[in-house]
Amino acid sequence: MKVLTEYLTFNTKKRREYVHITPQVEAAVAKSGVREGLAFVSAMHITAAIYVNDHESGLIADIDEWLDQLAPPRPDYRHHQTGEDNADAHLKNLILHHEVTLPITNGRLDLGPWQRVFYAEFDGQRKKRVIIKILGE
Amino acid sequence: MKVLTEYLTFNTKKRREYVHITPQVEAAVAKSGVREGLAFVSAMHITAAIYVNDHESGLIADIDEWLDQLAPPRPDYRHHQTGEDNADAHLKNLILHHEVTLPITNGRLDLGPWQRVFYAEFDGQRKKRVIIKILGE
Amino acid sequence: MKVLTEYLTFNTKKRREYVHITPQVEAAVAKSGVREGLAFVSAMHITAAIYVNDHESGLIADIDEWLDQLAPPRPDYRHHQTGEDNADAHLKNLILHHEVTLPITNGRLDLGPWQRVFYAEFDGQRKKRVIIKILGE
Repeated sequence: MKVLTEYLTFNTKKRREYVHITPQVEAAVAKSGVREGLAFVSAMHITAAIYVNDHESGLIADIDEWLDQLAPPRPDYRHHQTGEDNADAHLKNLILHHEVTLPITNGRLDLGPWQRVFYAEFDGQRKKRVIIKILGE
Repeated sequence: MKVLTEYLTFNTKKRREYVHITPQVEAAVAKSGVREGLAFVSAMHITAAIYVNDHESGLIADIDEWLDQLAPPRPDYRHHQTGEDNADAHLKNLILHHEVTLPITNGRLDLGPWQRVFYAEFDGQRKKRVIIKILGE
Repeated sequence: MKVLTEYLTFNTKKRREYVHITPQVEAAVAKSGVREGLAFVSAMHITAAIYVNDHESGLIADIDEWLDQLAPPRPDYRHHQTGEDNADAHLKNLILHHEVTLPITNGRLDLGPWQRVFYAEFDGQRKKRVIIKILGE
């Protein structure tokens, strides 16, 4: 069994950003030498997410607007009594989830034709990390 | 370590459909010979989902109606400027997620009494694929 | 390859409860002897969830209220024609998801500084189970 661990670091310019990371995950798979297995990709934060969907700017803007409808920024969350102002970022993390698992076949990510991996930042402008763990043989 | 990869193909009659696939996943586990490990099941599309819940037609109709409330079909998504009309299907995929991981114990899916695996199609009437990857020993 | 399987049992006093279970998952990782791998944690029920977020009581109350907005308790779900009254618990399970996968590095859960694992009960006051499966080497 082979295992590889990689960390990516992001420091987005805007508070919210959607960063395409399929190339970085593919690079980790290649580096691991795993031919058959799984690639696990996870934000190490509770105000960011990893998701798989379309690399299309209109849809990404739709997703961003939709997340604000489902988990609106509001001053009156209880969490803000701790001094934080990012409760909506926690809820957005819960909708999209912080992690995905991806299949590896013949040494490559075995994704469908339109599946792309994204890092979704909901409370950025500071250094944040993603872990990639590759397992297989 | 043993690894097995299987692909399922669906071509639903209706645009939206919920297909029970626990038997197909169980068959892949049996074929793999894995006694202890994980079964990974993923839609290879960004307008379909894999989820685990009840095999009860009333609840499935509730889920379908509820997804339309959270991610309504609407003409004015930005994604539709590309010529597509399925932005709501992408958002439904994000709520339910495209993949699940399931435990294997003693050569069987180790699910709770009511847990059943479903393929949720949100933009069907064409050929679409699911990947199953079994890992373990 | 090493594999360890553990089951946790919960019987919450309230119908809805959020139980911090990072210590139990850490204990399973230590018991497994796995240094590099993945920890899979899943509710074995369709009215409970496993999620990763902040161990902060204000945020947990926000999450609970927010889940009621997205998936309200209502008498008129079709699922209730079966005699059940918990359709909203099924929908809350779908939002938060029943399972997480967590990375193991150097024999420990490799989580970010604020990531904590929770069992979310939406229909408790009875015995329910969680499965932990550790895989790696």
